[in-house]
Amino acid sequence: MSIQKIAGGVTAPKGFKAACCAAGIKYKNRTDMAMITSAVPCAVAGTFTTNKVKAAPVLWDMDVVYKEKAAQAVVVNAGIANAATGKTGLDICGQTAAFAANTLGIPEKQVLLGSTGVIGPNLPIDRITAGIADMAAKLSDTLDAGTAASKAIMTTDTVNKEFAVEFELPGQDGTPVTVRMGGMSKGSGMIHPNMCTMLGYITTDCLIGQALLQKAVSAVVANTFNMISVDGDTSTNDTLLVLANGLAGNAPITEENESYALFCEALFSICRDLAVKMAGDGEGATHLLEMRVYNADTTENAKTLAKSVIGSSLVKAMVFGKDANCGRILCALGYAGPDFDPAVIEVYLHGEKDTLCFYKDGCVQAFDEDLALSILSETAVRFSCNMNMGSAEATAWGCDLTYDYVKINGDYRT
Amino acid sequence: MSIQKIAGGVTAPKGFKAACCAAGIKYKNRTDMAMITSAVPCAVAGTFTTNKVKAAPVLWDMDVVYKEKAAQAVVVNAGIANAATGKTGLDICGQTAAFAANTLGIPEKQVLLGSTGVIGPNLPIDRITAGIADMAAKLSDTLDAGTAASKAIMTTDTVNKEFAVEFELPGQDGTPVTVRMGGMSKGSGMIHPNMCTMLGYITTDCLIGQALLQKAVSAVVANTFNMISVDGDTSTNDTLLVLANGLAGNAPITEENESYALFCEALFSICRDLAVKMAGDGEGATHLLEMRVYNADTTENAKTLAKSVIGSSLVKAMVFGKDANCGRILCALGYAGPDFDPAVIEVYLHGEKDTLCFYKDGCVQAFDEDLALSILSETAVRFSCNMNMGSAEATAWGCDLTYDYVKINGDYRT
Repeated sequence: MSIQKIAGGVTAPKGFKAACCAAGIKYKNRTDMAMITSAVPCAVAGTFTTNKVKAAPVLWDMDVVYKEKAAQAVVVNAGIANAATGKTGLDICGQTAAFAANTLGIPEKQVLLGSTGVIGPNLPIDRITAGIADMAAKLSDTLDAGTAASKAIMTTDTVNKEFAVEFELPGQDGTPVTVRMGGMSKGSGMIHPNMCTMLGYITTDCLIGQALLQKAVSAVVANTFNMISVDGDTSTNDTLLVLANGLAGNAPITEENESYALFCEALFSICRDLAVKMAGDGEGATHLLEMRVYNADTTENAKTLAKSVIGSSLVKAMVFGKDANCGRILCALGYAGPDFDPAVIEVYLHGEKDTLCFYKDGCVQAFDEDLALSILSETAVRFSCNMNMGSAEATAWGCDLTYDYVKINGDYRT
Repeated sequence: MSIQKIAGGVTAPKGFKAACCAAGIKYKNRTDMAMITSAVPCAVAGTFTTNKVKAAPVLWDMDVVYKEKAAQAVVVNAGIANAATGKTGLDICGQTAAFAANTLGIPEKQVLLGSTGVIGPNLPIDRITAGIADMAAKLSDTLDAGTAASKAIMTTDTVNKEFAVEFELPGQDGTPVTVRMGGMSKGSGMIHPNMCTMLGYITTDCLIGQALLQKAVSAVVANTFNMISVDGDTSTNDTLLVLANGLAGNAPITEENESYALFCEALFSICRDLAVKMAGDGEGATHLLEMRVYNADTTENAKTLAKSVIGSSLVKAMVFGKDANCGRILCALGYAGPDFDPAVIEVYLHGEKDTLCFYKDGCVQAFDEDLALSILSETAVRFSCNMNMGSAEATAWGCDLTYDYVKINGDYRT
């Protein structure tokens, strides 16, 4: 059976609840804290920012994921990143986790934390604890509760991001059971591979070993969240966490069998959806930008080339201006690093219905400017490049560079 | 004797002439072609774009510099880049050089070419040759002729860029003689290390061996032109050429002695000046952005860290918005790659008179917001980071990210 999209997000799988509240961390008149809990302890896996300057909650979560390998709750705030806060920041993480653990009746080291917002200021611990107490009383397994949580973690995001799927796996007695997986994420600026300023939380009721769960997460992130870029800036706070509570009743996944493959496929579908939504909702963005590189010599080179194009300020500005200046795509491929022969590659622009060849045989091609303008006016702008070298391929996603990106980031703190 | 700044640019040294004309390549009502000639053949050295997609004139010049190692004239046009033009583009280079050589009475392979502008279209060879004939009749050794040439090669540049110096070297009989060096460059968008969309031409009447000249150029470019970035895009056309005609009468520089050191210092002063001017004149820029990294473990790491900061879209937008959001500097240092301990580094903002400490002891520091705003209102915004690891240092230059950058690049072709 295939993977089906279903309604909802993190509360779609069995045994997960969510809540949110307006804790007044920084924003006014909006929710800014979210909590997710599981009825039972979950196997947990995650990937974290590669930035050398890691926010306190990232250090806390790495400890939980790499040492405890299990968790039962996640507490997230928007507004302040708790990054570059030294020992005070770590102390606040400890106090937050202790308070949540006490409130929920679970071990302190089973509480995961996430923060997003301005780097530098300290979190107001009294508002954080008040928020936790408030949310603990409101935890709900409804789909609406998950949706509300996905809204509470937004910063400059313009839309909330959630996605859920279901699929069948053999049950413990062999009869098929339904497994669900749901996720939410936020991320808008400071978005770049490895990872983005993203916080992403995925829940599933699948029963799967922690080591396999981590393996699946690492593999899927490499082709989804790590293939998007809004502005080339890798944040201090990026975190993706996947919690699996095992309540679906499937036969445990303990080896890389068919069930594991289906689990990975479901995880990919959620991560891809959330990643593409984040790219398309890049700060100030008016277009989603997609670059597919195929017939490359290696997957690594295909990734590097695709990411170079979606990361180019000139390509991004050109997409904003709906200007079919394909020389910039060629230029971004050329400085990406991997070796190739400019005489044999082909560059295309793809619309919903039409495809234009921009470059071939070493020359920019003549094309219908009106058709190009019409394609560049679509919400998603898709380019591709045939490298004519091998059979590897990769796709990267980004967004255009707009006046609003500059406006948002020229005056972010105030 | 030290190095003195003097008036003028490429015509400041003995034996060099320049001219320009309005050839109508793409722009209307402005000059768009320039020519530099030397009375005698020059030793020539250069550095070229590392982009895999190299424009036809880059391929032509690489051939001249690496094989002929001598040249007597440079012909440059603005408006069309002659890039991604395949065999036709190379043929046009051959025809241009042949026509110039014939007009000037020099060998075809001693003519260097440069083009900047839109990627894709073919150059109109009839207008190019008409321009060459026009300029050949107007060649002049006045400083004004050099200045006019520096204006003719501009694209989206808002100011022309030239700089000249003089210094003394032992003459052939031991008596000191005056040696001059002058340069001009253009570059505004598609500016990034290795190299920028820059065309740069430096002339000198110094007598120096070609191998040493190339060595000096490569070393100096690494610390000047390759340390600036406007938008992270490395163009297809970047070219820096240095022509040395030997007419100053100095004792030939044939080894790395004191005279060579002084020559390198003069070359550095010109390249640094032109590079910083290019960074400050980045497309749409309102601020020059400087980042100095010191007490680093290695020079390579210091360079990588400094370039990461001046290349960060978020830092650039924050400088535009005069927002002292120092977390973004920390973030850009953190994702640059080199390893460091966030607990020991210090980040500063430097004004003309005051210095503010932004970050120390693992924490963002409290600072006077009014003073920060006042410093960020200066034309040049300077940051530094003490890595507290070793004794290596590097400085990189860039500019802020503005509405006008987006405007200029959203609609470049029209």
